[in-house]
Order: sequence, then structure tokens, then C-alpha cells
Amino acid sequence: MPQLTARASASQESVFARMSRLAAQRGAVNLGQGFPAGPPPAFLRAAARHAVGRTDQYTPPAGLSALRDALGADLGVDGADITVTCGATEALNVLALSLYGPGDEVLMLEPVFDVYLPQARLAGATPVTVPMRFDRQAGWAFDPGALAAAVTPRTRALLLNTPYNPTGTVFTPDELASIVALARQHDLWIISDEVYDELYFGERPVSLRTLAPERTFTVGSAGKRLEVTGWRVGWIAAPPGLSGALGGVRQVTSFCAPAPLQAAVAAALPVARQEGFYDALRREYAARRDLLAGGLRALGAAVFEPRGTYFLTALHPDWTAESLVEGAGVAVIPGEAFYARHAAPAGLLRAAFCKSTDDIHLALERLESHQRSRS
Amino acid sequence: MPQLTARASASQESVFARMSRLAAQRGAVNLGQGFPAGPPPAFLRAAARHAVGRTDQYTPPAGLSALRDALGADLGVDGADITVTCGATEALNVLALSLYGPGDEVLMLEPVFDVYLPQARLAGATPVTVPMRFDRQAGWAFDPGALAAAVTPRTRALLLNTPYNPTGTVFTPDELASIVALARQHDLWIISDEVYDELYFGERPVSLRTLAPERTFTVGSAGKRLEVTGWRVGWIAAPPGLSGALGGVRQVTSFCAPAPLQAAVAAALPVARQEGFYDALRREYAARRDLLAGGLRALGAAVFEPRGTYFLTALHPDWTAESLVEGAGVAVIPGEAFYARHAAPAGLLRAAFCKSTDDIHLALERLESHQRSRS
Repeated sequence: MPQLTARASASQESVFARMSRLAAQRGAVNLGQGFPAGPPPAFLRAAARHAVGRTDQYTPPAGLSALRDALGADLGVDGADITVTCGATEALNVLALSLYGPGDEVLMLEPVFDVYLPQARLAGATPVTVPMRFDRQAGWAFDPGALAAAVTPRTRALLLNTPYNPTGTVFTPDELASIVALARQHDLWIISDEVYDELYFGERPVSLRTLAPERTFTVGSAGKRLEVTGWRVGWIAAPPGLSGALGGVRQVTSFCAPAPLQAAVAAALPVARQEGFYDALRREYAARRDLLAGGLRALGAAVFEPRGTYFLTALHPDWTAESLVEGAGVAVIPGEAFYARHAAPAGLLRAAFCKSTDDIHLALERLESHQRSRS
Repeated sequence: MPQLTARASASQESVFARMSRLAAQRGAVNLGQGFPAGPPPAFLRAAARHAVGRTDQYTPPAGLSALRDALGADLGVDGADITVTCGATEALNVLALSLYGPGDEVLMLEPVFDVYLPQARLAGATPVTVPMRFDRQAGWAFDPGALAAAVTPRTRALLLNTPYNPTGTVFTPDELASIVALARQHDLWIISDEVYDELYFGERPVSLRTLAPERTFTVGSAGKRLEVTGWRVGWIAAPPGLSGALGGVRQVTSFCAPAPLQAAVAAALPVARQEGFYDALRREYAARRDLLAGGLRALGAAVFEPRGTYFLTALHPDWTAESLVEGAGVAVIPGEAFYARHAAPAGLLRAAFCKSTDDIHLALERLESHQRSRS
């Protein structure tokens, strides 16, 4: 038989898919992969059931115009600058293919969301991760000097994530201003992965797009906002004039996003805003975050409180993700999953609190039994 | 501003998207892009409405196990060898990235479905098209000698399409046997795009997979089979043992296909088979093909009867796709869209008959008026 390409031979099951698979096989409570426990909101379900049988055929590659307009209104941009994709994963892949290629470097922070690395390589570019400062008491801090020092003549883009998975960091306006100044100084694209834009626990995060509209591509996700991670409706908000070229790439990667689910999201976006859906979600998630954080602390973990996302990170001297899924019946993500160049802090785990309170209680009970059985 | 990559700068709106856009802008009857007129079957709509609110979160990248199993049963393969994708377009893109890269050549026939070319280039490979023989009376014929002569030491794969868009060709068992012999002689992969596998008008097409299971990747589409081109549920049936590597690439391109629509297709596949849905579809499309072909012939076109797909091709001395969408209010696809290396036959057009009989009648009336106004 002929060989597969190196990129296929080197590909591995992602840790998120693997932990979900192990969780299902072992009957573990799944605090690993970031998908919500509950059904999506009733207004979204009704919109999808209405769209099935009405909006079932190819949409334009850039998306249904109703969805592009709804997103434009929601994000405060022109609908013509929106490109709809099969989830944020495809949005990031289309941007990688469109913005960098062989010989180019793209800077991203570490800890790093895993898919950024193979996507940069698939585009032929070199991903370069820049470490966040880490302190076992205070957690992570952005280091603008380290980012600036990593720029070379080959650097083409900065790929950032705010609110930031897995650290829960929300970049401050000053930090964002320093990032924008660096991008302007070296004429770099900015890719801002803002899929958790509505999942924050303090001040509303500032979107990088508002600070550098001429060079920022914002990535968003109906899956994360509306609790439907499997629907595959994501988007890119591009600088004016650049959507045409993105659409040309995007029609080659999957042609268009799922039509009835695009129609449903178009109908649901203004309703979510009017009905205060995101406010309610934040309140609910803050309570679950406190439940999980308090429970983990009681079991001896050091917990870093997230400012955004629906994940928390924790250090525990005795736990590993492997031992918990095998021995305790609780799936989490090992810290190593987010480290490419540097060693992960010892005992680092990421746990999702977008799960039911029942599941969080059950996970804590199981962790407590596991802890007792070992002492 | 920095530059876009060459692949983004060179990308163009596909002719299918462009003709659909023009058709909508001009109020033209759209016989261009291949999407069906009617709503999808009731059993599929019901399954989708049931799945919304129940199957909404990430599925494994390779697909819901229920869908992989249903496809395995339908296609006569092991469900473990199935990879579910966001439509057949993504399936073809995942295969391009997995099977060929820089320095490799991939052979395909011309006329060629347009997306094959940019996908090969996106993978870093060189697409090489091999002309079908063409006769203005008899239409297209496969030329095994020309295909064999195009093989070089760099050739890695043969990319074929049966039933074949746009020619409507269904390869005979003898033709397929010669293709398999060539692939075995030179140790080439075979990618067989069989999205129209249930849309044929004579003998059931033979799947290349049954002749060369060790090296054939079959691409299929729920959109084409079940009249939901916008649902984005496609698949790859891979040789045993190769799905893992494909899944690793596919989780990077869009992570997974739309979950509720995967669940709906899983439920619908056995029902479609049991209820004779495909038989009814073939009968219905045969009648519409005859209606359109007869009408076009009466207007002076030479029509090539397709053996499969829901397209026909025709030659008309006075018509161009541009003049018809502008002047007659009828959108079709120009023959040039399918020719990369060679000139298209003069006056070649592709027209879809997966449209309502009302629309086909209306298109024929408009073409007749257009014809009269010019004579």
C-alpha cells in the first residue's frame, strides 16, 4: 500500500476526544471535554425544528444572509464581514490557511488550546508558543516582554484566546493595548479566538476587534454561546474587505455550514440578547464554578478562579487525569494537554463546570471516596 | 496590512455559488447548482426534529457510533471504517490532506468537478487532469490509455467520480477493472467520489471499493441521497485500519459533523432502504430528466442523456450560461467550469433536473421566449 502523508501519520486522537471516550467506556463523570450538560434553550430548539424542512439546501459559502446580518448586529460589525463556518474549529483552520503558509511563524501563548498547533502545521507554518508566567499561588500572567521577544522577521500573526481556555484569563485593556501596539509595530495579523465571549464573571471582556479593526479576525461560536457544541455553527468577523478571500478558502474546506442550524442560530441570536439568556447563563455558571472550586479545595486542591470560560484549573499533589478516570470515575483534562514546548506545572488539571450540579456533586463525592481510599 | 496567503488571494467564488447568487439576484429559475427543489422526506424531517434537544453536543470526530454503524450496514463495510465529515466536500478535503502532499501528483478526469483542483493544491500536491474522449454526437468516453499514460513516479492517487458529475457517466465493470489494475500496478490510492451512488438510471453502479477494498476510499453524502444538500453530513469509507489517521486530520479541520443531523441520518438510512425511497427518487428524476431533455431538444439543443447524477449536459449553438441568466432568466452552469487544462466543447452547458416540474416547465418556457426574441 502507498503511505499516508506525514500529517495524517502524525495525527493523534485529541485529548478531549480521548477523555470523552474513556469517560463513556468507564462510566466516569465527564468534567473533561467542554460541552454543557443541559439541553439547549427552548427558543433555539423551536427555531431548529422550524428550520428543518424549510432551510435544508446549500447556503452561500459565507453563510445564510439572515445569519450574517444577525451576527453583524450582535457583534456591531457589517454582516458582509462575517464568514460562517462549521464551528470555530473550521473558522480557525480557514484563518490558518488564509493568513500563513510555509516559512511563516505564528505566535500563540502557552498553555495553548491544542488544535492551534496542528492547524498551523497543516497550513505549512511554524507555531511558536510563548509561555505565560506561572506562579503556583497566583496562577498565570501575561508577559508582554516575552511575546515581543518572540517576534522574528518570519512572524505573520498573533493567535490569542480571550477569555482564555484553559487558564480562564480575561486580558485587561492595557494588556490588549500592548498586543495591538506590537501587532502594528511588526505589521502582524491578529486572530482572536473569542468563543467564550459571553462566558465571563466580572467586567465584559474587550474584543480585540474594537482596538485593531484593520487587522483583527474574531472567531466566535454558537456552540459555546447557546449550549450546542455539536451544531457546528461558528464564524469569523474579518477586517472590512477580506471576507471574499476567506469565503474562497472556506468553500473548499466544507462548502458551507449546516443550513437549518444556521437558520436557527440566526433566529435565536436576537432572542438570546433580549431575554437575558447570557446573563442567566453567567449566573448559573458562577454558582457551579463556586460549587466545584469549593469542593476541590476541600479535597486539597489549589484552584485558580477563572475570570471567563466554563473551565477551572487546579493543582493537586496526588491526582493525575489518568488515575482519576481509571480510579475515581471522574474525567478531567491533564495539564500536559496544553503544553507544547514547556513542562506543565506538576499536578495541573482542567475541569469543566458546564455540567449539571448533580454531576458536579457526584464527581466531588467520587473524588472524596478516591481520596479516602488512598489515605 | 500584511498579505493574505497565495491560496487565499487566488481563491475565487465557485461557479456554483456564483450562478446561485446571480439566479437569486435576477429572479432566474435555478437549474445551476445541484440542490433539490422539494423538502426532504418526512421520515428524515421527523428524525431531525426528534434529535434537536437530544443530540446537540460534540460527537466523536469520526462520527456518532449510531451513524457509523448505520452506514456500515448500508454500504456493507465495518462501521469502524467510516469517518463522518461536514459534507462530501470536507470528506474530499480530508482525503487530499491525508493522501498527498508537496511533490505528489493526483490524477483526475476532465471534465472535472471544480473543487478537486483547489483541494489538491491546498494539500500541496499537483492536480493532473486527463481528458475524457469527446464526440459531439456520442458524448464522453473513458480513455484508459490516456489515464495510464499520465502516471508518473510522482503519481499518488486516482480521484474518480461515478456516477460522474457533469457527464452523467457510470463506469462499466470493465472500465473499473482497468482502473483498479492501473492503481495496483503503480501502487496508487483510489478516491472514489460516489455521492450520486443512489442516483442512476440503468444498472446499479459498481462501487470501486468492492473491486479494490485495500486501497479505495469511497466518499458519500447524505445531502445527495436524502435531498438535504445543506445538512453537511458526508462520509468516507476507508480501507480497514486507516480510519484512525483520517480522524486525526478531520478533528483539526472541523472537529465533528453536526450532531442532531448525524443522528437524524442514522435513523433515516435504514428507513430509506426499507421504504424504497431511492427507487421512488430514481423514477421521479427519470421523468424530470426526460421532461428537461425533451424540452431542450425541441429548442435545438443536443442533449447527452446521463446514466446517473441529477444533471444533464447539452450543446446549443446560441446559448451561453451568462446570456441565459441575464437574458432568459434561467441559470445553468457553463461547460468551462469543468475544464482546467483543455477548452470546453463550444456551447456546453450543465443543467440540473433535481428541480420541481413546475420550475422545469417555467425554465423551458423562458428559454423558448428567449429563443423567439432572438430569431
